[in-house]
Order: sequence, then C-alpha cells, then structure tokens
Amino acid sequence: MRDFSSGCSHLAINSATVKQWSIERLIEECARRGIPAVALWHEDVELVGVDKVRRALEGAGVGLSGYCRAGFFPFGSQEEKSKSRGRNELVLEFAAALGSPSVAIVAGGLATSGDRRKDVDSARAQIVEGLASLLEYSKPLKMPLAIEPLHPMYAADRACINTLQHALDICDELDPQRTGSLGVAVDCYHVWWDPQLKQQIARAGKDRILGFHICDWLVPTRDMLNDRGMMGDGVIDIPKIRAWVEKTGFEGFAEVEIFSAADWWLRDGSLVLDTCVERYQTVV
Amino acid sequence: MRDFSSGCSHLAINSATVKQWSIERLIEECARRGIPAVALWHEDVELVGVDKVRRALEGAGVGLSGYCRAGFFPFGSQEEKSKSRGRNELVLEFAAALGSPSVAIVAGGLATSGDRRKDVDSARAQIVEGLASLLEYSKPLKMPLAIEPLHPMYAADRACINTLQHALDICDELDPQRTGSLGVAVDCYHVWWDPQLKQQIARAGKDRILGFHICDWLVPTRDMLNDRGMMGDGVIDIPKIRAWVEKTGFEGFAEVEIFSAADWWLRDGSLVLDTCVERYQTVV
Repeated sequence: MRDFSSGCSHLAINSATVKQWSIERLIEECARRGIPAVALWHEDVELVGVDKVRRALEGAGVGLSGYCRAGFFPFGSQEEKSKSRGRNELVLEFAAALGSPSVAIVAGGLATSGDRRKDVDSARAQIVEGLASLLEYSKPLKMPLAIEPLHPMYAADRACINTLQHALDICDELDPQRTGSLGVAVDCYHVWWDPQLKQQIARAGKDRILGFHICDWLVPTRDMLNDRGMMGDGVIDIPKIRAWVEKTGFEGFAEVEIFSAADWWLRDGSLVLDTCVERYQTVV
Repeated sequence: MRDFSSGCSHLAINSATVKQWSIERLIEECARRGIPAVALWHEDVELVGVDKVRRALEGAGVGLSGYCRAGFFPFGSQEEKSKSRGRNELVLEFAAALGSPSVAIVAGGLATSGDRRKDVDSARAQIVEGLASLLEYSKPLKMPLAIEPLHPMYAADRACINTLQHALDICDELDPQRTGSLGVAVDCYHVWWDPQLKQQIARAGKDRILGFHICDWLVPTRDMLNDRGMMGDGVIDIPKIRAWVEKTGFEGFAEVEIFSAADWWLRDGSLVLDTCVERYQTVV
C-alpha cells in the first residue's frame, strides 16, 4: 500500500468539494499546495470555457483525475434521449481536450415520465444500450468510460447501477476483451456497505478501476445528497478499501469528492483544502 | 398470483403506519374493515400490557402478521450486549404470548462506541453470533426469526444486513436444515433496487419467506427514515415483487408499513386505513 503520510502526490480534489471557489481559484490553490490533480464538472467548464480551463491547468501544472459526467441514459421520450446523447458526446470531447484520464458515468435512474416510471429492469436495459452506443463515440477519442455505481438510495433518481458487481457485469458484457475503454469508479461513499466489495474490487482488477473516490459517511446523515463527510469524520474504513484497490495494482489518485451543503461548503476554501491534505496524510 | 381486487383478506397493517392511533383503536378499526391482521411494536405492547393486547386481539378476531423487533446485535461493550440480549428474549416471549407467526430481526449497524466503530466486518460477525445465540432461545418457543434486510442507507446505524442474498447466506449458515426457525422478511422499500432480487426471492423459497412488507419509494425522498410513501405513490413495482414472492408459494399477508412524519402520520387514521385498503385492492 502506498505511503500517504507525507506530501500529497496521489491526492486529487473534485471541484464540488470546494464549491465556494471558481475552477481557476481551485487550480491555483491546488498548485500552491502540491496537489497534482483536480476533477472538474462539465457545467462549470462550459461556463468558463474549455480553452481557458486548459490553459489554467497547463499554466499551473495541475492535471485531471476525472471529468464529471456523462450518462443519465433512461428516458421517457425519444426526444429527451437524442438531446442527452448530444450532451454526452460533448462531455467526452471536452474531457479529451482537457486530457482527462476518463469520464465518470452516472447511469441515470428510472424514466421520469411515461409508463416505464416504475420499470427498473427497463431502465437498466436502456443504460446498457446507451453505454454501448456511447462507447462507439468514446473509443475513437480514446476516452475511457468509468461507470460509477451510486449508493442504492439514488436508484430511483440518479443511477440504478448500485453495486460494483452490477457495473462489472456490464463491463463484461460490453467490453469482454478488457480493452480499457470501459471500467468503474470506486467511490467509498457509495460502496462501503457492500458485503461483496472486496471480491468485486479484486474482480475489477487494475485495468478496470479507473477512479477511486473518497469522503466519509456521517452518522447521522441529515441529507441524502449533500451531507457527505470529510475523511475521518464518519464510519467508512477508508484505508481498508484503499488497500483492496491498491492490491489490484491501482496507481491512480485518491480523489476527494465531498458534497456538504451545511458544513464544508460554508467554510473558507483554504481550510477545506488544507483539511483534505491533512486527512489524506492521516486517515486515508 | 392471488387476487387482491376485492376484500382485504391478505392485508395486514403495521401499527407504525397509523402512529396517531393507540393499539386498541387500530385493532378495533381493522376488525371493522375486515383487515385480518396487524403487526405490533414491542415498546407499544409493553406500555399497554401484553395481556390487555392479547384480549383486544382475541376480542376483535384480529391476528398478528409480525412482531417488531429483536436484533441490534453489534455493541461496543459487554454490558450493552447483555442488556440487549435480555431485551431480545423478552421480545420473543411477548411475540409468543400474542401468537405472532415470527419476530422481525433488525440486525443493528456498526458498534456505536469503541474501536470497532468503523468495522462493518466485525459488526456482521457479531450479528451472526448474536443470531446464533438468540436461536437457542427462540427454538423452544417455536418463534421463527425473520431477518429483515434493511436498505443500505441504514447500514451504519440500523442494520448492516442490507441484501436478501446476505440475509439468506446467514440463514444457510445458521439453519442449513431449513427447520423454519430462521428466515427473512421481504420489505419492498428496502430491496426494490436490488438487481439480484428476483433470484434471491426464488432462492429463499416458501419456507424462508416469513414476511412481506409493502409501502412505496417516493421521489424525491425528503427524509431517510420517515418519508415512506403509500403504495402507488412512488416508483416501486409492487405487483412484480409480489408475483415473485407468491411464486414461491408464499401465502402470508401483505403488511403495510409506512413511516411518514410529514404526511400520513398527520392525517386522520381512518383515512389512512381506508387508503391502505383501496391501494391494496388496486396497486399491490
């Protein structure tokens, strides 16, 4: 297992963790602390402009750990579906322009309209179909897709791929040759509870683990979306999961992604970043 | 699949659904509507007195579909553990005195104190140990234990048995002969998202399905504990799951269990009960 006790050469910060800052400020502050990478959100990059973001990254010597996000495949109507496909393709192009190692896939939940609103099997079939189609676009761009299983509490409205096992079954189906074009992102927050976690991480292997995300599960959790904890403040045994991930040979970043409307988003960004570094060195 | 379109001969009401009523009132109102069974909570029965509750049930000709609940096995200290065991044994005795067909097992989450606070493996080992020990007490009472896998969002603080597969693995371990002393309760709210659900229900079989609970998953869900929906108001395909359950030969009740602090608990109890009957006939 890699030694994280000094420096931060394997730390990455997802920009959602420091929502109080602009992309440019985040990149600058990361560079100052020796944090080598950030993960960015497409909506933010669109606002700033992809060329400007690329120059900021290059100027600061900061890379990307990932890019958020494509997916949301199940839809009630054909019109919604076409619109979404166009957006997904643009996300891949931006990720490629910025040199991201992968794009996070948030699969989408149940159809929000139509008579398939309660049909989780249909939603899952649409996800596989949507992924297969998106792979045709991502492969020429050499942009790997990282399916991120989300916690089952998001199955209805965000992603009904909720376990690593399920995500890896889809990888086996769509990329049986393990070409590197399709893999998973392991986010401790979403998967820590899963009794199959250890074996599924081993099954994924180095070539299919495209991302490793960290934060913590607070007790109590006061909000289903925006009450994630700073590493060390909750109940997830992060070093245990990191050990399983690194045992596959994984050499990527530990990417901090904390949505925290009532706590960390209200604090000074510098304090948040310094705390990420300190916790990375002590409890990750 | 049984025909639920008229009457309510397979409907049961968990008393938590009509929290605004006393146990006695609930029993009386169920009897009036021809609802044949209720599920009760030990704390409520203790307050009223077990003999009084038994007489109320017998007088009204209403039975029990289940009894809530034993479990909460993982603890930080030996003292907590002993105290909990005594309480669990009392729950079984009360359930037997009231003629319940089973006792629901809510396994418990992580230890709330001590150095195992982040150790989900240890918590799960304590659960198996606790169940094995409780079985020694429940078998002479002929009181089956129904492990209820809870939604993974409760893994930290309520139950870290979160899938039917995991619960059935424990059944296989502790009762390989399938004596009927140990089984599961299938609550649609907790398991609807699980891609393994159909096969695990089939694996459970008639002799291990000791309870079938219904309510609905609302979108959005505004509270992690007390925002369950009335059947039909959310996204769970209840008839699909009921069909899988009944395919095993299950002949028990569909037990309504709705925790709803901001909606159904604020309404008139009669309206809640009438709505349960109507939804049972139309969307379950």
